Amino acid sequence: MAQNIIIVGGVALGSKAACRFKRLEPKSHVTIIDQDRYISYGGCGIPFYVSGDVSDVNDLRKTSFHMVRDEAFFHNCKDIDVLTQTRVEKIDRENKTVQIRRMDGSTDTLAYDQLVLGTGSRPRRLPIPGIDLPMVYTAANLNDAQAIKEVVTKGQVERAVIIGGGFIGLEMAEALADMWEVETTVVEYCDQIMPGFVSSMFARMAQQQMEQHGVHFYISEEVKAIEGTDTVEAVVTNKRRIEADLVIMSVGAIPNVDLARDAGLQIGKTGAIVVDEYLRTTDPVIYAGGDCAEIRNLVSGQPAYFPLGSMANRQGRVIGTNLAGGKAVFKGAVGSFVVKTFEAALAGAGLSLSSALKAGFDAVSVQVAQLDRAHFYPGKAMMHLELVVEKETRRVLGIQGFGDQGDAVVGRIDTVAAILEDRPTIDRISNMEVAYSPPFSSAMDILNALGNTAENMLDGRYRPINAEEFAEKWSCNGDGDECLILDCRARQDGEAFAQKYPDRWINIPQDELRQRVGEIPPGKKLILLCNTGVRSYEAQLNLKEMGRDDPLSVQGGIVTLNKCGLDL
Amino acid sequence: MAQNIIIVGGVALGSKAACRFKRLEPKSHVTIIDQDRYISYGGCGIPFYVSGDVSDVNDLRKTSFHMVRDEAFFHNCKDIDVLTQTRVEKIDRENKTVQIRRMDGSTDTLAYDQLVLGTGSRPRRLPIPGIDLPMVYTAANLNDAQAIKEVVTKGQVERAVIIGGGFIGLEMAEALADMWEVETTVVEYCDQIMPGFVSSMFARMAQQQMEQHGVHFYISEEVKAIEGTDTVEAVVTNKRRIEADLVIMSVGAIPNVDLARDAGLQIGKTGAIVVDEYLRTTDPVIYAGGDCAEIRNLVSGQPAYFPLGSMANRQGRVIGTNLAGGKAVFKGAVGSFVVKTFEAALAGAGLSLSSALKAGFDAVSVQVAQLDRAHFYPGKAMMHLELVVEKETRRVLGIQGFGDQGDAVVGRIDTVAAILEDRPTIDRISNMEVAYSPPFSSAMDILNALGNTAENMLDGRYRPINAEEFAEKWSCNGDGDECLILDCRARQDGEAFAQKYPDRWINIPQDELRQRVGEIPPGKKLILLCNTGVRSYEAQLNLKEMGRDDPLSVQGGIVTLNKCGLDL
Repeated sequence: MAQNIIIVGGVALGSKAACRFKRLEPKSHVTIIDQDRYISYGGCGIPFYVSGDVSDVNDLRKTSFHMVRDEAFFHNCKDIDVLTQTRVEKIDRENKTVQIRRMDGSTDTLAYDQLVLGTGSRPRRLPIPGIDLPMVYTAANLNDAQAIKEVVTKGQVERAVIIGGGFIGLEMAEALADMWEVETTVVEYCDQIMPGFVSSMFARMAQQQMEQHGVHFYISEEVKAIEGTDTVEAVVTNKRRIEADLVIMSVGAIPNVDLARDAGLQIGKTGAIVVDEYLRTTDPVIYAGGDCAEIRNLVSGQPAYFPLGSMANRQGRVIGTNLAGGKAVFKGAVGSFVVKTFEAALAGAGLSLSSALKAGFDAVSVQVAQLDRAHFYPGKAMMHLELVVEKETRRVLGIQGFGDQGDAVVGRIDTVAAILEDRPTIDRISNMEVAYSPPFSSAMDILNALGNTAENMLDGRYRPINAEEFAEKWSCNGDGDECLILDCRARQDGEAFAQKYPDRWINIPQDELRQRVGEIPPGKKLILLCNTGVRSYEAQLNLKEMGRDDPLSVQGGIVTLNKCGLDL
Repeated sequence: MAQNIIIVGGVALGSKAACRFKRLEPKSHVTIIDQDRYISYGGCGIPFYVSGDVSDVNDLRKTSFHMVRDEAFFHNCKDIDVLTQTRVEKIDRENKTVQIRRMDGSTDTLAYDQLVLGTGSRPRRLPIPGIDLPMVYTAANLNDAQAIKEVVTKGQVERAVIIGGGFIGLEMAEALADMWEVETTVVEYCDQIMPGFVSSMFARMAQQQMEQHGVHFYISEEVKAIEGTDTVEAVVTNKRRIEADLVIMSVGAIPNVDLARDAGLQIGKTGAIVVDEYLRTTDPVIYAGGDCAEIRNLVSGQPAYFPLGSMANRQGRVIGTNLAGGKAVFKGAVGSFVVKTFEAALAGAGLSLSSALKAGFDAVSVQVAQLDRAHFYPGKAMMHLELVVEKETRRVLGIQGFGDQGDAVVGRIDTVAAILEDRPTIDRISNMEVAYSPPFSSAMDILNALGNTAENMLDGRYRPINAEEFAEKWSCNGDGDECLILDCRARQDGEAFAQKYPDRWINIPQDELRQRVGEIPPGKKLILLCNTGVRSYEAQLNLKEMGRDDPLSVQGGIVTLNKCGLDL
């Protein structure tokens, strides 16, 4: 029997659910209602529209075959009615109706058999003075996007401040600094960019890389006010005043749940709408998904909030199927992400070490630096991966990566993400079958090396310190807690350092270690170092065999120290 | 207690097993014995050495930190003895000894506690006249590589024939044609290149792409002889004579198992040594792995033979662990592969449709063409994926891909490969969580689209024909079995075709279909076509709703037809 489906919100989830449902039940009637004038656009593309990578804002609204997804498109191609600039003001669950208000003030009541809530999210705005000044934007919808692009293309922006160093903040910073040569500063409240998503070391790598392209960062600073009279003039933090003629606030998303809450639907602890694995709310004829819904984190098992376009699209299809009587399931997500930082990419899936500890896991992490393809192949680049592991069970909880060839980084992350919900142990990573040919991977791929390294660490053979721990020990040198760097690289690489730091650094290439072990001065804490950590691990085993069980090995080697901004 | 380990063969598996074992048991003694003068090299890099991507043959023998892995390296860095140019002639299992013969003819008997066979493979050579002529090479070891590189760099090669269109054949063809502008012809006995690995359509795509770079192909031709007097002059097939001054034979690998067979170890039906999941042969103190061992195909469950460097490396580590009393497991492989064809890549994992049918599965496949990142992002490229599925269970048996951005193709293949051993069904692909950001993927990624398309096909909504079936129907037109192309693209794309083929082609854009359905002439078999297959699927559903259940939709659309070389 033909149904009457109403869908509230038509950006990603709503339009996908509508189209999928209509393909399954062409004779049913579907109405999408959205308060904006634009629907069905690629909101994640906004930074790339601002950067100029995407020239026309309508490109974000088009299909891959260049049709603008407007009301006419949905009517003609999909036989779906769309009401734009129309608000749904109330849901009457008992009578299965929604009350709407059009822009002209007229109201109406529409009946539904099943209802979908794709009300999305709104950007969080800090409760600080100056927030309503002109030239203060979020980057959350096409209206904002057009306004920002207009002022930068007109040359009206010389200095911009981005509040928030998450995904959108970093992408907007790149857009402004790279294409428009705007003096761009990112202010982040937490003690690193991308807090919770990656370790502070990977955050440093991405930050340093963006700094090399001219973006400024102030970390661990709280924005107290935005100053200006007719327009923005400066952003004031707890530590400084930063002049600006454009401010973009990207400090997170808040799910739009008023309609759901007012209708008595359950709201979860993340603040988003509770749904079951069929994406049904607590009312079985009302579905919700996308940025307004709470799903399960498949690694932690906890309720989670992932406001991401790809999530909304896949959920939209599940809802479309279920509206038509199907039993499609959306189990949750492992939280895969990627953010482009100029030519590099920072990506991850599952839990970072800090989020794993916060979720109650007794977790550790291990980092590896290795070339992303055969080391003899010319197009190689260094990749950094971090694996987060539960100690006792050796279960893999998450992976993060940073590298210059984004597709290669994303490939490794996606590969591990694919199995994360199955609670894999590290041997699965050690034996991961990565398609091998020298232009694409190594015979012992970095993923395999990552699993192997985790195993060596958990078995107690590999005793690493990370870049931050090294930096701390290095800066302590000279004030009592003496340690000695044993540089395991070849002479041509290590000798200059030994000469520069005669009291703190010696160079014994790993292949000479067994002969020259007597040269190591006794009594000092040894820290083993090489280019990426391979030889220093070998040296650690050599020294253990020779009775020295205490040395630590710098994971990821000098390559990692440099990427984290440690200048030796 | 310290052990005495002997390892026969030191290219990939042997050296990895030796190093891993020594890291676990530094006090034990390890000897690698190899008949060649080179050990521990990256054999998969040979085509890239010939092409000039790798300039020095020693780069294939070096570590990532630029040390040549020769006898001295193994002695100094690893405390492992290496005997090169030494043959193991016999294994005496009862007394646990091997009999060796050095190049000078001297012999010796060495005792082992445990033995590892990493005897590798040799290139198959066709039993045809002329095989021993000068300038007839395989590309299986560094000696061959150096000889080939020498003659091409000296300009002594104008015309080369490659016998065999598998991995090495294609890579060598690219090396010769691209860098050295050698007139290069590939002769393949089967009816497609990469037989068994990809569908004939994906093989055509790769072939056409290589043809555009000047490589010639003769498919379904049998090489009967190699002609020449002092040196090669021509290759003679069952259909023609091809002049050549260099011939490279790449027609597969044969495992070297004589030593194992003579010692009474079990040889499997693939011709390689039988091992258990710990990689032990039928003698529990003798391990085997790499190109001489048979492992399990984790999709088909059948014994399989995967002579691949990455496999050997991972197996080597497992053997190293187990030699030291560990219980590491190597369950088998799903057969991931990738081959670079100029700027593109052809990759896969699991079973192709033909190999699935051969293995007894009631399988079908579905193809999708979609951009590899957001369609509005400038760096996008078309990607083609094929999913092989068991009909009844909807189990995913394999995936193959072809596209211009190799890392992006490999990323998708690896992601599916990671779960193949778990017998996933297609909904796992539909819901695959791919890290999303417009520069790297689509909100509904091509992987998700692939799963969705498979579902739509198995549910009977999507009734596709592939490029080959289309080509057949198209060529039949005019001789009775009339069919009509209904082009669902916009007028600016479709109208020119409708004018070119007035009797066989009409253009009704999908969004006008419901209004204009009356224009479709009755009585003809309808074939729906658009750019990539999205609109023709939508049109198929529209027509079904309007009572026409018979039309077929061309999967992958015109983009795919063009890539397969069909000129409309």
